[in-house]
Amino acid sequence: MNGRMIVYVLGRVMLICGVLMLLPLLVVFLYQEKTAVSFIIPIVVLIGGGFGISFRRPSNRRIYTREGFFIVAMSWVILSAFGALPFWISGEIPNYLDAFFETVSGFTTTGASILPNAEALSQGMLFWRSFTHWVGGMGVLVFVMAVLPRSEAESQSMYILRAESPGPQVGKLVSKMRLTARILYGIYLGLTLVEFILLVIGGMPVFDSILTAFSTAGTGGFGIKVESIAYYGSAYIDIVVGVFMVLFGINFNVFFLLLAGEFFQAFRCQEVRWYLGIIGAATLLIAADIYHIYGTVGQSLRYAFFQVSSIITTTGFATADFTQWPMFSQVILVCLMFCGACAGSTGGGIKVSRVLILGKIAKKEIKHMISPRSVNSIKFEGKTVEQEVFSGVSAFFIVYMIIYAVSFLLMSLDQVDFSTAFTSVAACINNVGPGLGAVGPAGHFGNLSWLSKVVLCFDMLAGRLELFPMLMLFSPLAWKR
Amino acid sequence: MNGRMIVYVLGRVMLICGVLMLLPLLVVFLYQEKTAVSFIIPIVVLIGGGFGISFRRPSNRRIYTREGFFIVAMSWVILSAFGALPFWISGEIPNYLDAFFETVSGFTTTGASILPNAEALSQGMLFWRSFTHWVGGMGVLVFVMAVLPRSEAESQSMYILRAESPGPQVGKLVSKMRLTARILYGIYLGLTLVEFILLVIGGMPVFDSILTAFSTAGTGGFGIKVESIAYYGSAYIDIVVGVFMVLFGINFNVFFLLLAGEFFQAFRCQEVRWYLGIIGAATLLIAADIYHIYGTVGQSLRYAFFQVSSIITTTGFATADFTQWPMFSQVILVCLMFCGACAGSTGGGIKVSRVLILGKIAKKEIKHMISPRSVNSIKFEGKTVEQEVFSGVSAFFIVYMIIYAVSFLLMSLDQVDFSTAFTSVAACINNVGPGLGAVGPAGHFGNLSWLSKVVLCFDMLAGRLELFPMLMLFSPLAWKR
Repeated sequence: MNGRMIVYVLGRVMLICGVLMLLPLLVVFLYQEKTAVSFIIPIVVLIGGGFGISFRRPSNRRIYTREGFFIVAMSWVILSAFGALPFWISGEIPNYLDAFFETVSGFTTTGASILPNAEALSQGMLFWRSFTHWVGGMGVLVFVMAVLPRSEAESQSMYILRAESPGPQVGKLVSKMRLTARILYGIYLGLTLVEFILLVIGGMPVFDSILTAFSTAGTGGFGIKVESIAYYGSAYIDIVVGVFMVLFGINFNVFFLLLAGEFFQAFRCQEVRWYLGIIGAATLLIAADIYHIYGTVGQSLRYAFFQVSSIITTTGFATADFTQWPMFSQVILVCLMFCGACAGSTGGGIKVSRVLILGKIAKKEIKHMISPRSVNSIKFEGKTVEQEVFSGVSAFFIVYMIIYAVSFLLMSLDQVDFSTAFTSVAACINNVGPGLGAVGPAGHFGNLSWLSKVVLCFDMLAGRLELFPMLMLFSPLAWKR
Repeated sequence: MNGRMIVYVLGRVMLICGVLMLLPLLVVFLYQEKTAVSFIIPIVVLIGGGFGISFRRPSNRRIYTREGFFIVAMSWVILSAFGALPFWISGEIPNYLDAFFETVSGFTTTGASILPNAEALSQGMLFWRSFTHWVGGMGVLVFVMAVLPRSEAESQSMYILRAESPGPQVGKLVSKMRLTARILYGIYLGLTLVEFILLVIGGMPVFDSILTAFSTAGTGGFGIKVESIAYYGSAYIDIVVGVFMVLFGINFNVFFLLLAGEFFQAFRCQEVRWYLGIIGAATLLIAADIYHIYGTVGQSLRYAFFQVSSIITTTGFATADFTQWPMFSQVILVCLMFCGACAGSTGGGIKVSRVLILGKIAKKEIKHMISPRSVNSIKFEGKTVEQEVFSGVSAFFIVYMIIYAVSFLLMSLDQVDFSTAFTSVAACINNVGPGLGAVGPAGHFGNLSWLSKVVLCFDMLAGRLELFPMLMLFSPLAWKR
């Protein structure tokens, strides 16, 4: 492995993290809070340290998949480790592991919180907390990439993006990396801005609107109120946030195509059509199931749509305590947690495209069993899926399930019930946020044991980084040579 | 599809089922019970009908995978449909769906019961109930095969066995079909006899010993007492049953090798070594976890070993209500339900060999991610695993999980809690029997809705027949031409 180059890139990541922290510091000054020093210390360490170790560009700047994966995994760990400092130094989250959990949850856009009452945080901390979602959402490494000199970007960023950008195929995103990154960034910023404006129009306070837009964009879901979005009690806000969650869960390729005027191609995207179809079907099923609670079709649809949109995009906002809904609705939501949003979006989970390919593999195998001599190829998005993708998706699913089983087993050592143990892993590995039982929307993750928190931190990171980079950190192969 | 041949074979299956029912009829006469007519009616229908439709051997006796799978699936459905009649006609299980559920559970060697109190059944019914385990255990189609003329056996049985014999590779079992079937049958009968004798020596009543041996051999787990094996309160009986469950969960290839004097090869079997290793590790972990309940190392090991052996072999006997154990022990047991026993045994679940191959696929993929150019082949039992097996195992796992998710969703429509819904599917698709929550060893499946029972019947059949034959019944392709 090219150790010097890894250190160099990680130094840059630290630098950027330090610069990003200036924004919450500004909020601290604006609100005249006394937590400035909690931000200044990590800023100094990050900028100083980052500048120190990335001062000289190494002569050999070649990196391969291994290095790319290693950098991605280490970046997220380092960002979370330093990002936790403001919470901890200020004493607003007195336990460092809790602060680390909260920050991992932020940067991985999970939104699982150890705080029983987020409203107790100061404005600066609240801002930083939601801002980590926004930063994590698009991936800090897109920033890094944009910072790196152009010639390097072409060769390196491909590997970084491969781990970074969620989904089985990076597709068009890979080509013309640098320009792509800027367009992506533009779409991301633009959508966030539009949502912010719409929320302000709806009467949400400006500060809340910014933070809610951050959380939605990153499909994170940290609430700034104990009751999450339910606090505002506004159908308009529910709909705006609901629709924007759906938008941020769409494959960004589609926005590309729309921007390029290729409407026909955009609407042909199989993944997005299935994604919207699943949202529609789940909304109707849940609305029917909860109709007896809300009494009117409109209200049932409103609550059902919001929760479906929040869970399938793995955001995790809540307008209702769905642990009080009938079990059928709850299990639909749990299934959506696993399904997740589109590849190439900021959402987590297995991803709609992978689920589709898995379904096609199953169908193919059944056909093969019935007539062994027939040759069945799998088609997706109009193209034949290559054997490598097929194997990759299968392997992803297997590795995912193995991590899931081990995490579930370790969670059961904690004093929690079956559904809490099961869904806390689902909520974290899929980067959703709330689960069922004690970790439902009305609960929090603060009462879990340190072991559970460590396991869930790993799951959040593994889920966000498409499993392999995190596993690599534990592989002796990665540390050899 | 060769429709005539299918009807012919199914006719033979009915004939055999009718003949098998003579045994419980004998028990009815022995105990001078009044339920003779409940057996005589189905016997007449089965033998008459079976003889009627398989009277003339079709001239074209060629069958392929499709036909084989179709026959296997239909056989199990027909056997269960007719096998349920005695329970229903006698009125001992007044609802036909319940009787069907109980019989499916019997022939699939699941052991999930709708009866709150099995002791209320007459001796004849109890015998028939446990006997279905024994019949199902080895597969009625092995009998069918032995009945079929020799020339046909060679070509046909291969396809039948492929669906029938659990596990990814039928291996040596496939060659020399007819002889093999007899040796298999001999081992099966021999082990059952030895267990029966050991139980009688241990002071268990003869009737109970026969039925317990039937249930153990088929890794079924129907208890004839409400408290299952705990009723006898004997450490000796616990150990005998525990050890025999482990034996019936071993790949029968290994017994072949032992009989042939190939001890070295037998002990080299990777699957069996892992299987025993998992049993050992799980026993120790659970024993440590339940030590505070039982007070002594000996008792903790006794209860832990029995339950581990019962669950991993998917038998489902109980010597303790493990839903009262700590969550960690419960989740270990749930994981073992999924793991299952060895391929080529009477046990269910995913099978140890498949789990091992899945683990190897995961490992290979991680290696491939770290160094994309390296070529990593998967080795199992000393041989390189071919791409086809690799894909087959992946596809099996995917299909398994899809069936699981859909079943779980449908179960959630019932008025049950999360862990009951989740583990009832696990208990049925893996052919275990008891789950957690309301369907734990102290509970039963009788209170579930008709939909849940239908779903679980499908899961039991799908699990027992390695998924594909049952899915084929629902594929329009199978009914074409």
